[in-house]
Amino acid sequence: MELELKGMLTDLQKLKSSLSDPSQQASIDQIRSRVENLTSLAMTGPTRRTKLKDMSAEVVDSNPYSRLMALQRMGIVDNYERIRDFSVAIVGIGGVGSVAAEMLTRCGIGRLLLYDYDTVELANMNRLFFRPDQVGMTKTDAAVQTLSEINPDVVLESFTLNITTVQGFETFIGSLKNKYFRKNKEGTGVDLVLSCVDNYEARMVVNQACNELNQTWMESGVSEDAVSGHIQLLIPGETACFACAPPLVVASGVDERTLKREGVCAASLPTTMGVVAGLLVQNTLKFLLKFGQVSPYLGYNALKDFFPTMSMKPNPQCSNGPCLERQKEYMLVKPERDAALKAKMEEELSTIEIPIHDDNEWNISVVDDCEVNVVNAQSSDVLPEGLTRELPDADVYQQPTVSKESVDTVDDLEDLKRQLEALHA
Amino acid sequence: MELELKGMLTDLQKLKSSLSDPSQQASIDQIRSRVENLTSLAMTGPTRRTKLKDMSAEVVDSNPYSRLMALQRMGIVDNYERIRDFSVAIVGIGGVGSVAAEMLTRCGIGRLLLYDYDTVELANMNRLFFRPDQVGMTKTDAAVQTLSEINPDVVLESFTLNITTVQGFETFIGSLKNKYFRKNKEGTGVDLVLSCVDNYEARMVVNQACNELNQTWMESGVSEDAVSGHIQLLIPGETACFACAPPLVVASGVDERTLKREGVCAASLPTTMGVVAGLLVQNTLKFLLKFGQVSPYLGYNALKDFFPTMSMKPNPQCSNGPCLERQKEYMLVKPERDAALKAKMEEELSTIEIPIHDDNEWNISVVDDCEVNVVNAQSSDVLPEGLTRELPDADVYQQPTVSKESVDTVDDLEDLKRQLEALHA
Repeated sequence: MELELKGMLTDLQKLKSSLSDPSQQASIDQIRSRVENLTSLAMTGPTRRTKLKDMSAEVVDSNPYSRLMALQRMGIVDNYERIRDFSVAIVGIGGVGSVAAEMLTRCGIGRLLLYDYDTVELANMNRLFFRPDQVGMTKTDAAVQTLSEINPDVVLESFTLNITTVQGFETFIGSLKNKYFRKNKEGTGVDLVLSCVDNYEARMVVNQACNELNQTWMESGVSEDAVSGHIQLLIPGETACFACAPPLVVASGVDERTLKREGVCAASLPTTMGVVAGLLVQNTLKFLLKFGQVSPYLGYNALKDFFPTMSMKPNPQCSNGPCLERQKEYMLVKPERDAALKAKMEEELSTIEIPIHDDNEWNISVVDDCEVNVVNAQSSDVLPEGLTRELPDADVYQQPTVSKESVDTVDDLEDLKRQLEALHA
Repeated sequence: MELELKGMLTDLQKLKSSLSDPSQQASIDQIRSRVENLTSLAMTGPTRRTKLKDMSAEVVDSNPYSRLMALQRMGIVDNYERIRDFSVAIVGIGGVGSVAAEMLTRCGIGRLLLYDYDTVELANMNRLFFRPDQVGMTKTDAAVQTLSEINPDVVLESFTLNITTVQGFETFIGSLKNKYFRKNKEGTGVDLVLSCVDNYEARMVVNQACNELNQTWMESGVSEDAVSGHIQLLIPGETACFACAPPLVVASGVDERTLKREGVCAASLPTTMGVVAGLLVQNTLKFLLKFGQVSPYLGYNALKDFFPTMSMKPNPQCSNGPCLERQKEYMLVKPERDAALKAKMEEELSTIEIPIHDDNEWNISVVDDCEVNVVNAQSSDVLPEGLTRELPDADVYQQPTVSKESVDTVDDLEDLKRQLEALHA
């Protein structure tokens, strides 16, 4: 379009110089002003917002960050603007990864690194994010196009590559190590890696890279029948890695994708993918901005609206070498870390004043009314000798389960944690 | 742009007729061909996919429905294509409603009715769906623009109006009654109403309309601190309506919006809004396509990743007149419906063959090994006399709680339901 408009101006200039009649020359000028109008129309394109230097908390319709900065006034987050310091890498820009990228972009994350080698197809249109006019583009290009329009403040880096190839893996590792964005950052150049891939092989590659780099990451997945999914936090050496407890059935020696493509395809739903992406980015925000409880594992069963949680310790017989090295390192620093955490919690416990309830507005009494109540109150905690519970209490179900294999000072810490939670409740 | 191009063609024609030199006339023709090129460029716009007459299950990259039709082959849904028969009304096209509309559009819903009177602002950009280039458009226009590009097969109707005004309410009711889309449909012209509004007054209006029309609807909400939300199914006469159990604190006599706008604003997050929209549309799909368990109420506590469920019976003292009428009607048809349901469940129970486990691959035994196990197994169900549990069992926590007030044949039905669920588990 630009070329045609420029060509037209040249043509008009030539034609005007060949004319002598002033009224004909005036006609040319009129046409030229129309071309100039068109040029300015074509140049503006879709309205884009300008970059913003700071995140303002001002409550005006023109502030894209007012509803996020409000999290501070609501007491949810201590310092929301810190989000601009963080870099998050998203591997796999499909049904979950693309939505996760959009959520982080709208939250004003500092920098996003995007990895995918696939192209957008009409068959992807049953999930959020990609548009029919992007069919044929690489998913990385289409994502950068959409995300940069939504929030030009986010630094976007895209890598159109397959991380499961030798060359791709090297580029992947190199990009995670690059610290240009925050030079004094400890560890790698990113704060978190989100795995949003759809196959076992790619998950094992992300696992390998993160174990080698000692990089905390989160894994996500959606079942082939589209009605369940999960997210999981993986801290090398501290939690189970992806190789510590591999799936029971995996493709042996053949490319998984060829198994999938013979006239059948996995089902998918924008709902399940959207919920999993939402839970993944919520866990990411809690992890980065330090609020709420970061879930070590959260499942989603859409048929029953059931959300199981659990946590997994690393496997001392894990087949992954770097995982075993990280486990050793973790065992060395663990006593010191536990002691510091214990001291901090004990201090917190000692400073909390237990309310005496001298004004008892609701006339609640615990022991006065009748003896039976006391027995009932106890019965939820203590069972008569010889009886044990088959199922944990409902409250315990919401807590990450601690594996009984490596019981040590953890019990002590868990006990303190429970006391603190009970007081804060 | 179109006007400028047309004007230019007229100007060129005039100029050409005033010229006699053939070389000058040829110059005009050259400019005219450039204008025609520009016109065709401006007309095409972004590539749009064509409408599709049928939903094909064919597994090709160009089929936007292959991953949805796969739900049938996976055994999740009996007949996915039925989705094209359904009409869903979405009231409030904000952080939850817009995403719900996009999910239903990508799922290929038959018809969407959209209601909102607000305009898109930069302050909305921290939630999914709207783009900065849509700032200043009404939310309904912007939604129709985006949704029709995503899936031209969906019939979109938008209403730029405030349902809490007298005129707005009449138009709202009228649009729900309109049956042109499926003339032989029972009840109203829509299959479900989704309330995605952000204030009490609008919720009460949706409640009023749905009680008057005997229209099943789902309510959704997100807290002002952005870290919790809920969805709820409301069937007039059968479940509690929104007036049966109103919030404890509501604005009295003043416009809620004026309360909100004095230099403060509610916090919001794309994650929480996305999760709530996902759970809402998932419940919608389960309700319309009859799969899984439709949740009567599902909460989302983002800080603890806790998802409470419950169900609420209608309040016989409800302040809403049409609710009381629907309750009376429901009590009249209830015995017949319960009897039919009971007969169906008994029939199902009698046809299920209880497995005898003659091959016990995992060597699981219940009574043989030792007496202590038997005691333990019982202890989870039966407590010694004089003791009761303060907390429900963990399993019961996941079940909708049945209010003890109106115990009748329901107990019988609930018992049959439990037996069936246990057998299907």
